[in-house]
Amino acid sequence: MNIEPSDVPLPIPGVRLATAAAGIRYRDRDDLVLMELAGNGTCAAVFTRNAFSAAPVQLARAHLRQAMPRYLLINAGNANAGTGRRGLDAARACCEGVARAAGCETVQVLPFSTGVIGEHLPVEPIAAQLPGLVEALSGDAWPAAARAIMTTDTRPKLAARTFQVDGQPVRLTGMAKGAGMIRPDMATLLVFLATDLSATHEVLQAVLAGAVAPSFNSITVDGDTSTNDACVLLASGANPLPPLMDPASPTALALQAAVTDLCMELAAGIVADAEGATKQVAVEVSGALDEAEACRVAYTVAESPLVKTALFAADPNWGRILAAVGRAGVRDLDIQGVRIWLDRVLVVADGGRAPGYREGDGRSVMAQREFAIRVALGRGEAEARILTCDLSCDYVRINAEYRT
Amino acid sequence: MNIEPSDVPLPIPGVRLATAAAGIRYRDRDDLVLMELAGNGTCAAVFTRNAFSAAPVQLARAHLRQAMPRYLLINAGNANAGTGRRGLDAARACCEGVARAAGCETVQVLPFSTGVIGEHLPVEPIAAQLPGLVEALSGDAWPAAARAIMTTDTRPKLAARTFQVDGQPVRLTGMAKGAGMIRPDMATLLVFLATDLSATHEVLQAVLAGAVAPSFNSITVDGDTSTNDACVLLASGANPLPPLMDPASPTALALQAAVTDLCMELAAGIVADAEGATKQVAVEVSGALDEAEACRVAYTVAESPLVKTALFAADPNWGRILAAVGRAGVRDLDIQGVRIWLDRVLVVADGGRAPGYREGDGRSVMAQREFAIRVALGRGEAEARILTCDLSCDYVRINAEYRT
Repeated sequence: MNIEPSDVPLPIPGVRLATAAAGIRYRDRDDLVLMELAGNGTCAAVFTRNAFSAAPVQLARAHLRQAMPRYLLINAGNANAGTGRRGLDAARACCEGVARAAGCETVQVLPFSTGVIGEHLPVEPIAAQLPGLVEALSGDAWPAAARAIMTTDTRPKLAARTFQVDGQPVRLTGMAKGAGMIRPDMATLLVFLATDLSATHEVLQAVLAGAVAPSFNSITVDGDTSTNDACVLLASGANPLPPLMDPASPTALALQAAVTDLCMELAAGIVADAEGATKQVAVEVSGALDEAEACRVAYTVAESPLVKTALFAADPNWGRILAAVGRAGVRDLDIQGVRIWLDRVLVVADGGRAPGYREGDGRSVMAQREFAIRVALGRGEAEARILTCDLSCDYVRINAEYRT
Repeated sequence: MNIEPSDVPLPIPGVRLATAAAGIRYRDRDDLVLMELAGNGTCAAVFTRNAFSAAPVQLARAHLRQAMPRYLLINAGNANAGTGRRGLDAARACCEGVARAAGCETVQVLPFSTGVIGEHLPVEPIAAQLPGLVEALSGDAWPAAARAIMTTDTRPKLAARTFQVDGQPVRLTGMAKGAGMIRPDMATLLVFLATDLSATHEVLQAVLAGAVAPSFNSITVDGDTSTNDACVLLASGANPLPPLMDPASPTALALQAAVTDLCMELAAGIVADAEGATKQVAVEVSGALDEAEACRVAYTVAESPLVKTALFAADPNWGRILAAVGRAGVRDLDIQGVRIWLDRVLVVADGGRAPGYREGDGRSVMAQREFAIRVALGRGEAEARILTCDLSCDYVRINAEYRT
């Protein structure tokens, strides 16, 4: 099967979008998105595991248990997190507004928010835009929507795929936002994916879980898991292919491959646009006893402030990588068996600098915008791959100035 | 019992020091220290648990198992870490040099190094200084030694205490260095403490372990545990008081209290002089089910890049604190029961902003150079207190320029 990236965002029949400027925090730009899913469509979602999950996350979870959604309402600029009961009331009032304007049940509306934590969401300016949003719904508003959900992002993340099943084309389009407070745990900041296939909720949820694990759940900017992470996959059912009922069917597997491929692109786009980032680095750990051990080492390297400042300086300071591996809590680690590469350049072996290593070779690797730090633990067969970025002065400046 | 801080560093009878400039990395300053312990003295030490422990750490551990030390040799500018067999040979050669110059066994010399990881330690310029160092040993060289062990530290950390037992004064003096790669685990960067009491190794080790836990093991600058951490307590035996044989004796408890008090001051000094730091913040967690849970929450808050940049900005951005608590992996955390204060200002209650909280009050607390973030989990009785600092542009600049 051939999965084709699409240069232009593909409208998904059965999914319509609209954007508006509610002035929640930003001026002179759209900050509100309404997405509509066809009546026979289905929806899967994963959310943050932060215990302080935001009001919209709590309400979206509750609504998903009661009904299949018809509308998604997304605002940027205010996270409606840490807002207690009043925050839940505000999220519910927004859903009620959509239900009134669009003629559906309140539980058929899912709310999403991203932005500053701890400030109350202004309901009235949002409610005032809802009738106009319903009027303006269109299949072509993906680019406008991808821009409207941005906060400290410097560019929209939007991508599409197409593949064929029995000669019938299938479409898949997705958008994401996220630039800081990024170490997704079961989900990422805000991601909205849609296909025109028809699928049961169970198939869709399995596909989404499979796609999120190696993509959004394998990136870290600053180790800070957001309160508002959510990733949604819609299936509009507009495609004439028969509904997916079995996650192991060839079409479901094709959808799985395409959704994973799309999520990898969007996740890489989030890291590439991380706050202040100048480098995009894959930390690849192999030879671990189990996957948890591989992940722990990879995250310890990927989140070490000293490794990240060395990445920023393009300095092949492998001592910091070695120190991070050494403190990752691997029981009875035999340091003689650890090897570390920068891309294909062997840097560490036998407990120290590799015999043939030349600093100029390491410097050449690190001068690139994208490269890999590869760690072989020499203990077993398990692997992990985490995508991360550098820690720059701009990260500090952005986060000292901006309220997440 | 009254523990008295001393404004001037107290010479410890039975302990002599000397410094020299070996030009290992720095120019125009001393970078080498020799400490001598009286022949009847004892020594306790704790070291890093980083699996990639440095050559001097490995050798010091081995020597301590074989003999009671007479000399400590400390160099700044080169960590002799990640240097494999050649690094061990270099550390051993330095110890042999001291043994020859001073007339003792090689295993009676403990080596310590701090500085850049992964470069080979130049033995000859160090060996050339050893006879002169032995000649120059003096009880008054603590201030010079505290300066000679500095790397990116901007000021020396030196403190002293005195207390009386049965009318007999007891002296305690200590020095520390450390400014980055600081999240000690069983020990901290380099700390040297000395008392004139006489004590068995067992009593001394118990006193040191008790003092290190709430001081050096409860601070974090960047979460990066060094490869070279070591903390040493010497007892010279010059004091006429009888030797301490029982860790529960009144004099041993008095020593415990004094050593802990001194270590708290030195640990606070390390955080206050952390790379680029402008704030010194205590994260105090209470109401946890057990101490491990309290520590996990405290470290998650203390090491969150978003919390630390908010500290730098003096921005009472409590949403980031709440998000860090929420992602700390506390099982079944009831967020309604969590309360967060800035000093005595209640900021978070009932899952959101506390009713009476005013932003100006939070801003006043955070404008201070020192304050506390207090988190009550409402689950149990366990507590933890971690001292940390902010994450500033200067931290990034220093670590993008300097090779640890």
